[in-house]
Amino acid sequence: MRFVLALFLVVCAAVPSFGDPAGDVPPVAIAIHGGAGTMTRADLSPEKEREIRATLERALLAGHTRLEAGASATDAVEAAIMVLENSPLFNAGYGAVFNSEGGHELDAAIMDGRTRNAGTVAGVRHIRNPILLARRVMTDSPHVMLTGEGAEEFAVSLGFDLVDEDYFSTDFRRQQLEQVQRQQSSVNDLPPPQFRYGTVGAVALDRDGNIAAGTSTGGMTNKRFGRIGDVPIIGAGTYADNATCAVSATGHGEYFIRSVVAHDIAALMRYTDASLQAAVDEVVHEKLVEFGGRGGVIGIDGDGNIAMEHNTPGMYRGAIDTSGNLTTGVFKDD
Amino acid sequence: MRFVLALFLVVCAAVPSFGDPAGDVPPVAIAIHGGAGTMTRADLSPEKEREIRATLERALLAGHTRLEAGASATDAVEAAIMVLENSPLFNAGYGAVFNSEGGHELDAAIMDGRTRNAGTVAGVRHIRNPILLARRVMTDSPHVMLTGEGAEEFAVSLGFDLVDEDYFSTDFRRQQLEQVQRQQSSVNDLPPPQFRYGTVGAVALDRDGNIAAGTSTGGMTNKRFGRIGDVPIIGAGTYADNATCAVSATGHGEYFIRSVVAHDIAALMRYTDASLQAAVDEVVHEKLVEFGGRGGVIGIDGDGNIAMEHNTPGMYRGAIDTSGNLTTGVFKDD
Repeated sequence: MRFVLALFLVVCAAVPSFGDPAGDVPPVAIAIHGGAGTMTRADLSPEKEREIRATLERALLAGHTRLEAGASATDAVEAAIMVLENSPLFNAGYGAVFNSEGGHELDAAIMDGRTRNAGTVAGVRHIRNPILLARRVMTDSPHVMLTGEGAEEFAVSLGFDLVDEDYFSTDFRRQQLEQVQRQQSSVNDLPPPQFRYGTVGAVALDRDGNIAAGTSTGGMTNKRFGRIGDVPIIGAGTYADNATCAVSATGHGEYFIRSVVAHDIAALMRYTDASLQAAVDEVVHEKLVEFGGRGGVIGIDGDGNIAMEHNTPGMYRGAIDTSGNLTTGVFKDD
Repeated sequence: MRFVLALFLVVCAAVPSFGDPAGDVPPVAIAIHGGAGTMTRADLSPEKEREIRATLERALLAGHTRLEAGASATDAVEAAIMVLENSPLFNAGYGAVFNSEGGHELDAAIMDGRTRNAGTVAGVRHIRNPILLARRVMTDSPHVMLTGEGAEEFAVSLGFDLVDEDYFSTDFRRQQLEQVQRQQSSVNDLPPPQFRYGTVGAVALDRDGNIAAGTSTGGMTNKRFGRIGDVPIIGAGTYADNATCAVSATGHGEYFIRSVVAHDIAALMRYTDASLQAAVDEVVHEKLVEFGGRGGVIGIDGDGNIAMEHNTPGMYRGAIDTSGNLTTGVFKDD
């Protein structure tokens, strides 16, 4: 009898207290992006595509494993983004693009949909994983946004190691800078379209029903020193609110700022009862297109519905949905 | 006959082509704020109050005179804000508060509701009138947001004079810094409420029916080096779209960022057909209050309706409405 009771207790403990009446565990889900852009099948080799999809899978699994273990959506977003920041394939962390001075300035943001707490950093040059610092701005400071040396001073006070700015440099990105500088007559011009984007991001739903969003980037190739894009602007490139959705954007940042893209998707859901997919479609394929804003977004809602839309030829993206299905995509027709 | 025809042409030229059928000139209007705060009648001397109201009037007239002469809403916003930046009475430009290092970091933003073009600067230290530089970021760069030294390098390239950081310093603000530093145990704490706010802003409607918004600030007293508040965040402290409204906010910036205050007001108007006043009331007196965000906003719509609301004891504010009536206010019951 004692054994049966013990077994009963073990079984009960294994059934999460927040389960539905059928005893199922609540769903988790995650979506990520590695940037929207003008890539076509013609200029992406099969090897490179395989490498990119494999990294997207690793990032998805890093986040999903944590969600399945009961971690928060914020933890999952952070874990997935770290994988992408640490890969040279994406414009964030290691492998970030160069600014006009041949340096790197990194931006990142994270937002917790449960509390609408947020943390962002902009223009940091010596932080290996800017998403980790954004998280600490959210949790360990009374501020939302810290920039440049002030943000790095805060990082040091928390025990972060500063890395040499060269840590972020790769030959591939240096060649891109040289190519842009040959084509661009002045830093006051924009680089060619394919060099305007490049961002990584993640959105997730955890077992407690909370959602979160995060984004990280090296910005625009050959950007003017001090330029900030949409990534660390809450409401533009990053936004999360349990009442509506969590969104991470990638695209021509200036248009995304002026359109307040992420918050507009949330507002459409809140005020017009649009579904996540309908709101994302309207903003990405109608409003942004009319306005001239190129790029894409990923979003998730409290039921784990995922939307991934872009008005560019491609967007590196992937998801593990509430049924556990893992998919990755690069081109429009993927 | 030739004389009569000439007279006829002169009269026609004097009647704006965009007039209504009755031949009236279209209305213009402007509203400004000089920051929300905890000021009460007890701690504001009658002399100081007179001085403040007189400066608000000067700022209103600087903008309104231009509007009556046919200048754009953006021009009027810029002119009004310059008066407030140049006054030591408000936390923007000359008389800006000190950061934790005893320096000044100034933020400003401007947005044109016709094009939804926007320009913002953050963390500048040597720009006499940050609103002028924000305007030039909008008109003369492909970017929306420039920060710190990068923004100042851009200013120099345009021929701006850099001023010594001491230009902004006043004894009154230095005493405030000392008072806050005595009360605040760490830069990771927030200053007492009365030192968290302080901003100037303007919104205007011009004869062409275009609206614009602008905001400028020295930020939070004793703020951590590198902190950015809501002012230069498009959608949070500043937003303008002819389709809805132009908004400039003042308050505890972190809450205004997380609530995407200015864009939320516009979204309520756009998606729920709320009037400007209803949308401002809902955001300032309901949503922000529930969320814990203290401050206020001013807004204007395409008909020249003006809303000025705050959930703090006071907000320095003023308006010249479409009938030409000039009013200023400081306390709730003004």
